[in-house]
Amino acid sequence: MASSGSGRMERLTSMLRRRGIVAPAFEAYGGVAGLVDYGPIGASIRRRVINAWLEYWSSSGDILEVESPTITPEQVLVASGHVGEFNDLMTSCRKCKSAYRADHLVESIRDDAESLAADQMTGLLESESIQCPGCGDSDWEPCAPMNLMFKTSIGAMGSGRVAYLRPETAQGMFMQYSLLYRHFRQKLPFGGIQTGKGYRNEISPRQGMIRLREFTMAELEYFFDPEDPPMGDDGDWSTPVSLIPSSNLDGVEMSLSVALESGVILHPTVGWFLARTLELVLRLGVSPGNLRFRQHRPDEMAHYATDCWDLELEGEHGWIECVGIANRTCHDLEQHATHSGKSEFRAWRPFESPRVIEVDRWAPVRAKIGPVFKQRAAEVTSAIEGLTDMPKQAPFDIELADGSTITITEEMVERRSETITETGEWFIPHVVEPAFGIDRIIWHILDHSYQESERDGELYTTMRLPQLTAPYDAVVLPLFDKDGMGAMAMELRSSLSSMGSLKIDYDSSKSIGRRYARADEVGIPWAVTVDHQSLEDGTVTIRNRDDGSQRRVDQGSLMELLTRSKHERDAL
Amino acid sequence: MASSGSGRMERLTSMLRRRGIVAPAFEAYGGVAGLVDYGPIGASIRRRVINAWLEYWSSSGDILEVESPTITPEQVLVASGHVGEFNDLMTSCRKCKSAYRADHLVESIRDDAESLAADQMTGLLESESIQCPGCGDSDWEPCAPMNLMFKTSIGAMGSGRVAYLRPETAQGMFMQYSLLYRHFRQKLPFGGIQTGKGYRNEISPRQGMIRLREFTMAELEYFFDPEDPPMGDDGDWSTPVSLIPSSNLDGVEMSLSVALESGVILHPTVGWFLARTLELVLRLGVSPGNLRFRQHRPDEMAHYATDCWDLELEGEHGWIECVGIANRTCHDLEQHATHSGKSEFRAWRPFESPRVIEVDRWAPVRAKIGPVFKQRAAEVTSAIEGLTDMPKQAPFDIELADGSTITITEEMVERRSETITETGEWFIPHVVEPAFGIDRIIWHILDHSYQESERDGELYTTMRLPQLTAPYDAVVLPLFDKDGMGAMAMELRSSLSSMGSLKIDYDSSKSIGRRYARADEVGIPWAVTVDHQSLEDGTVTIRNRDDGSQRRVDQGSLMELLTRSKHERDAL
Repeated sequence: MASSGSGRMERLTSMLRRRGIVAPAFEAYGGVAGLVDYGPIGASIRRRVINAWLEYWSSSGDILEVESPTITPEQVLVASGHVGEFNDLMTSCRKCKSAYRADHLVESIRDDAESLAADQMTGLLESESIQCPGCGDSDWEPCAPMNLMFKTSIGAMGSGRVAYLRPETAQGMFMQYSLLYRHFRQKLPFGGIQTGKGYRNEISPRQGMIRLREFTMAELEYFFDPEDPPMGDDGDWSTPVSLIPSSNLDGVEMSLSVALESGVILHPTVGWFLARTLELVLRLGVSPGNLRFRQHRPDEMAHYATDCWDLELEGEHGWIECVGIANRTCHDLEQHATHSGKSEFRAWRPFESPRVIEVDRWAPVRAKIGPVFKQRAAEVTSAIEGLTDMPKQAPFDIELADGSTITITEEMVERRSETITETGEWFIPHVVEPAFGIDRIIWHILDHSYQESERDGELYTTMRLPQLTAPYDAVVLPLFDKDGMGAMAMELRSSLSSMGSLKIDYDSSKSIGRRYARADEVGIPWAVTVDHQSLEDGTVTIRNRDDGSQRRVDQGSLMELLTRSKHERDAL
Repeated sequence: MASSGSGRMERLTSMLRRRGIVAPAFEAYGGVAGLVDYGPIGASIRRRVINAWLEYWSSSGDILEVESPTITPEQVLVASGHVGEFNDLMTSCRKCKSAYRADHLVESIRDDAESLAADQMTGLLESESIQCPGCGDSDWEPCAPMNLMFKTSIGAMGSGRVAYLRPETAQGMFMQYSLLYRHFRQKLPFGGIQTGKGYRNEISPRQGMIRLREFTMAELEYFFDPEDPPMGDDGDWSTPVSLIPSSNLDGVEMSLSVALESGVILHPTVGWFLARTLELVLRLGVSPGNLRFRQHRPDEMAHYATDCWDLELEGEHGWIECVGIANRTCHDLEQHATHSGKSEFRAWRPFESPRVIEVDRWAPVRAKIGPVFKQRAAEVTSAIEGLTDMPKQAPFDIELADGSTITITEEMVERRSETITETGEWFIPHVVEPAFGIDRIIWHILDHSYQESERDGELYTTMRLPQLTAPYDAVVLPLFDKDGMGAMAMELRSSLSSMGSLKIDYDSSKSIGRRYARADEVGIPWAVTVDHQSLEDGTVTIRNRDDGSQRRVDQGSLMELLTRSKHERDAL
């Protein structure tokens, strides 16, 4: 990131809007806070970030994309905990009726604003005489949790079924666990990835692209056997990076490889995904000087999680969480198994060699049971045979299917030993999840790439995006739009565009200097100019965005250069 | 499409489910009608269909992708007409309370079921004694329109703002019209494309992937000057195709080029997009023998539209509308201009040469105005100068900024003639829209590609997808997973995967014949086998899905073959 000068954020935001990168949505109708549009340049950057993300994870072969609905029935989100727990504390001013997120009102005086309970928060608003940002009064309604999901109803109005817009894509991968398990031929580890919209009905969205009500997520659920946690050697294990372990809030600078060896990172699979995440975000254009990994404090983690890290990026909004990497253990699959009553959320672990085990059983003595239980005797017999927890001694009570409890006396059963051969066992896989906020990452790539300088006494801006996430690979410019230069440039654009995955812009409007500036401003790495000499010998000039250097090349070399820089892009 | 044998649809649907292509969503919780999951194989096909769609339109350079929110505030959808008009007639059984789409109840007796009015429909249910499919009774509530949008609320509960999930992506492009106009430097024609989720709260969804509540759309809005309707020569103008013109419901077989010349297609820009749509869907894998273009009857078109065609595809569900191509004229932009009161929904048409016109103006006589209006004189003077509708003669009344009205007498003004040079004029662009239902197209590609045959007395199925939309370009198979064949095959997969955009699967489980069958079933066009000889001389065998032919090639030739077939795929 260039140094954060006064007004820099406003200039960047205004450029993003003017150039059709990102703008508030529905502006003609006054706009809606927390909803944004990506214009033609922004949508191209967004598409390339998403494609690079998908390709990065897919290339290993054990991770595949899936696609699920955004509309999610209530039961699924009850199981996941979102119906009960996905809340912010809210209050409203008794005088002007404006509604606020309570933690926003006290964040300047309390660091732990987000973790206060409702009654603590209500007390704090009163004891500190917090003023309403709207009217200045200080008379608050009691704080109450508000669920942050968008609610809707599926089907005909009267008989509609409650549903929500998904707060995360993750539940889609859990729902598809059995499809993935079958696809990967019942062999762990494997992963499912998904990108798409997520929704969060913020009470008062702020900070531009940081806190949206509708956002693009990209999540990976990597399922594995907790007895054999996987770890690969790909990813960036060696670059020194800022870490804030929960045990040392001053932070340390070390490579992820050292962090894992020294026990700062608690879980090898979590460490592996930190290393891959690091490699990926650097490729996308995040500046290495403005990132850090922060470990969750034990009281900050979900109760089931064992090790969680946030990738935080620094920009005009301060340090912002952009990726969360969590070991969610078996929690989600277990919840869905319990709530749905289905057995599909598990995996089979074969033993290295079959295990022969001896088990004790109570065998029913029919001659004694019959006279006592009469027409229910068969039911009692099979209840005894079906016992899984073996009572140590008789007499004992057992429950029948109708809920009634009966007592089995000593003479009704005989103790027997049996041997059983087990070849493996069922278990619920664990999952490590890296969850990416794509809009936040795009904001930071833009922020880190945006560079201001002075040229001829005026502000000159360059967006130093890597070619991988630049809106175009190159722009073709006819020096003038006449004498056949325009036609030759159009033809060149078209032939370069047909070369596989190159995306080429064309611009013939205004002076060549103005056009270079326009391309630099939105981050196009190469400008190819068709001039008088081009008409004679077919050569063109190619200009590098970052150093402004130019050289003349023939069209063969041009193809080679762009193709090579494209491959360098892919391989970078 | 292979001949539609008995039970073919059930076998196809069950294969799609078993192989993780498409399955009902949230099945562990009993499922939700109208919501589907794409599993790993299906999501890959879907991603390739979407990418091919985006690349097809983007390659011309005058059409660019944009991205908008799915949550849409009510005002926008009032302007677009969806709040008022996006309805189905609904009724419910008085006995068992089940709700139904009324047109579904009478479709077996009326062809025009969808266009009946509420009272006609209510009468018909009674006069024909239509029975409730649930309980068999025949006592219906009066039919009433039900809006088909999913409703939600943005922001805190009490003060929430009504919003809907978008019924189409099109409104996003209209909202971004001014961003696009600026991006293309105020020069028509240009287009915006978008793919993403669309929503329709069906009362009773049916027909698998045909009538979904949440679906993937891909829409293009192509804006142009109606005085200069654009037409290009790309697209498929020459293949004879079935047309059902509104004037000849028996249908005709002709090329689109002949259809336009002979006046069957009414609008050249509509014709152009029919030709491009035809070329595109054939590339995606639609069978040419199972498609037709059907022109809307005048009473079937929206009131503002001038020429509309549906691309209908034939499959197991009969003939289904999969793409709609409509000339929406200036209707949408005009509606948004009116409802928002904004002037941004227009374009500038420069005259070929400037036009000099004479206009009459009233010039204020300050000497008379001053004494009468005193300190308000300046305000009155500028109000006279600012008049746009010129009163024919004085005295006349004018309104000041504060809303008060004053009278201007004869001596306060002098009539003057002025000449003005006009260089152009503002107008509202027209738009042609091809709107693609991606899930319906995927269903038909699968349906048309699915081929059943018999092998060794058993059913053998092959999915003859083009490489462009196949889930993988190739699968690499070690003949056995031992002696280094597994390792060599894994390495080969990895090196082929790194070759740009090839997507390569790997399969080492069960017999080689079984693995060929598995790959054929999901449509992978090439199977590459690593065998004993591969270990010695590095050669592999490559097998073609469609004819089963095999040949031995070295790895250089393999790369070349897959790369060439990939380029043929792109160029096909």
